[in-house]
Amino acid sequence: MASTFEVEAKYDLITRRLQEVLGGDSIKAILAEGRPPKAYWGTAPTGRPHIGYFVALTKIADFLRAGVEVKILLADVHAFLDNLKAPLELVAHRTKYYEFLLRTVFTSLGIPTSKLIFVQGSDYQLTREYNLDNYRLCATVTEHDAKKAGAEVVKQVESPLISGLLYPGLQALDEQYLGVDFQFGGIDQRKIFTFAELYLPRLGYAKRAHLMNPMVPGLMGGKMSSSDPDSKIDFLDPPEAVKRKIKKAFCEEGNITENGLLAFIKTVLIPISQLRIERRKGETGVDSEEGQGATGDQNPFVDDDAPEGMVFTIRREGKFGGPPSHYKDYQELEDDFSAKKVHPGDLKTAVNKAIDSLLAPIRKAFAESSEWQEIEKLAYPDPNAKTELKKKKEKVYHPPPPGKGKNAQVIKASAESSEPPLPISENTQPGATGEL
Amino acid sequence: MASTFEVEAKYDLITRRLQEVLGGDSIKAILAEGRPPKAYWGTAPTGRPHIGYFVALTKIADFLRAGVEVKILLADVHAFLDNLKAPLELVAHRTKYYEFLLRTVFTSLGIPTSKLIFVQGSDYQLTREYNLDNYRLCATVTEHDAKKAGAEVVKQVESPLISGLLYPGLQALDEQYLGVDFQFGGIDQRKIFTFAELYLPRLGYAKRAHLMNPMVPGLMGGKMSSSDPDSKIDFLDPPEAVKRKIKKAFCEEGNITENGLLAFIKTVLIPISQLRIERRKGETGVDSEEGQGATGDQNPFVDDDAPEGMVFTIRREGKFGGPPSHYKDYQELEDDFSAKKVHPGDLKTAVNKAIDSLLAPIRKAFAESSEWQEIEKLAYPDPNAKTELKKKKEKVYHPPPPGKGKNAQVIKASAESSEPPLPISENTQPGATGEL
Repeated sequence: MASTFEVEAKYDLITRRLQEVLGGDSIKAILAEGRPPKAYWGTAPTGRPHIGYFVALTKIADFLRAGVEVKILLADVHAFLDNLKAPLELVAHRTKYYEFLLRTVFTSLGIPTSKLIFVQGSDYQLTREYNLDNYRLCATVTEHDAKKAGAEVVKQVESPLISGLLYPGLQALDEQYLGVDFQFGGIDQRKIFTFAELYLPRLGYAKRAHLMNPMVPGLMGGKMSSSDPDSKIDFLDPPEAVKRKIKKAFCEEGNITENGLLAFIKTVLIPISQLRIERRKGETGVDSEEGQGATGDQNPFVDDDAPEGMVFTIRREGKFGGPPSHYKDYQELEDDFSAKKVHPGDLKTAVNKAIDSLLAPIRKAFAESSEWQEIEKLAYPDPNAKTELKKKKEKVYHPPPPGKGKNAQVIKASAESSEPPLPISENTQPGATGEL
Repeated sequence: MASTFEVEAKYDLITRRLQEVLGGDSIKAILAEGRPPKAYWGTAPTGRPHIGYFVALTKIADFLRAGVEVKILLADVHAFLDNLKAPLELVAHRTKYYEFLLRTVFTSLGIPTSKLIFVQGSDYQLTREYNLDNYRLCATVTEHDAKKAGAEVVKQVESPLISGLLYPGLQALDEQYLGVDFQFGGIDQRKIFTFAELYLPRLGYAKRAHLMNPMVPGLMGGKMSSSDPDSKIDFLDPPEAVKRKIKKAFCEEGNITENGLLAFIKTVLIPISQLRIERRKGETGVDSEEGQGATGDQNPFVDDDAPEGMVFTIRREGKFGGPPSHYKDYQELEDDFSAKKVHPGDLKTAVNKAIDSLLAPIRKAFAESSEWQEIEKLAYPDPNAKTELKKKKEKVYHPPPPGKGKNAQVIKASAESSEPPLPISENTQPGATGEL
């Protein structure tokens, strides 16, 4: 049995900054028993992860610090099935790349990863048991319910594919097969999560809790686009690229709603800043060694000479110059920005500096790991290295009469694209791009 | 290389009495190469097979006689998933029961079964490869195409289940995984078959030929009902039961359209009668030993003193008495019945006698096989042996607001039924009852 105090402290750490918690009592009950809750968060290893992933990873850091056993599902089967763009072999390389990267991020933050487990979807999603359960679900779930559950995360297209209907059920089964107590995701997953709560018990399985992050606009503002590499910042981008991209980011004076930079400060930079401040005071999570393995600069994003209790500093330079502003929480900063007391240029400089300090140890780890570099080449081969694009021959089906042409669908001739698909939301779930 | 004559003879045997053939040229090409075509026919081992199965089995006999390698798919996974009525263990017993029965029927008819292979769906439908292909299909097939393909064989209900959409794709994959050259089924399967022709090539697999039997009304007329055991004749029914049921069968004087007895004569009795006549003349299929292992009375359903070339005899008794009528083909008999020259009572007597002669060796084989009897008890346990019906507790899901009640579906409390589900059509295909 754990003390009430301990239970509450861990529960607060697990659930802070979330937008919604379903089934929180069951997590409290597990904590009260003194055993570590188990959780999972899934991502499909498709394109290179951009630094928007920090949003989910920062929250996962809370779980790990509270002693939660966290499974990160690298949903390779889903990645393969996402439009069938990448062959399984390529996805296998990307899966390894993702693991290298995510582990490195946690390590750089000084988050203990002994309770972090990486699982590949293909490890269990193609087994006899899982598939029988998938069929059982399909013989239980109506098209209507599946469609509603997936409405926010499955791409809505004119001719929806069957895969979109399978997706909520598969994500529900993952909870059972990963043996977790709760699943974590963005609030866009809510209908998928309540679907899981409804249907898992119908298969005789436990209903799990669901923890949801708020949705966060992309750091760069505007739509991320695979044809515009400047629309997202890669974890391995060099400082010049980061600087150029942040300079281009949409950040309108006084506009606090469409502002990816403010959102990033709120959901990533301030939490990390707080983490570092707490550690300086010796306040760690369940692991007293926490922070000792951290790499790179571990200063919070606040000036050394700021008053006690501050978590973020904006310096003022050039013609808008003046003394720096120190903030004790995000709200203060937002109020100042809203009142146009903080200039976008200074905000960008502060974010740029913070991101540089976050990415430096990751770049370094990459530079020092020939294994990771090798994987990177295999996972994201240089598109310019391809001199010839293989064209698929256009296939047209001629069904026999009387069915002729009725169901016919022409396979579009398409040049093989080496540009990977991008995750849609900050809290990328397997299949969030909609094609399973 | 096979002679043109041989190719034509085999092709005629393979395709005679069918309503439609798609891809016949590919079968001719295989025959011309001198190799045996491979085929599959599927059935879900649910309720006890009734003698309507003779319609498909008689046609399959043609395939076997033409040297076709026939796989009978006992779709146990589909049977399990059909409304999830029967647990997998029970389905396993039923799968064995079906194999015992179907093998016995072929043996009794003297059909060589050396090229007959029984395959269980679970042998391959739950493998990694099959499921990956299923997912690939689901990421390729639109809901619209899947729904259209299944329109005739998937039960149309107000709240359709996802399983109904998977079914056409799974049946297409079966062709690939069973490695066949053609699939055989009822004409009700046509849309499923053209769907397979469209989508298998999209996965990089060969397009198969499709052979279709006409749809045939049930022997008893009217709707078969699981609550009325008299609505179908079981292969193991004793003579008294057969007599009672045929007496009850709908057979209106002069009515040739809604007449299950006439249909049975056309599609089962006359073909078997012809088979026996041919054998008497030494005309066998590819196997010159054909017929030597036949059990029971091997007389054609025509009186000994009938003129040469006759295939069916109706005797006239009682007040409608007179000399028997001998028919050289079905059409002659239908014309006579339509003109009210054949009385329903005499038709029933002729059918009753023929069925008795067909069932006698099957009953005998069952009586002599303690193994089959044991399986029968396990596959279809005596409903009266159950004194207590387990009632499932009604489960009602209360989703958290705001999703409350939206997708909620109440699991109906249902007493466990020991009455097995019935196949819908004479040419039962896996999942033909619609719930996968």
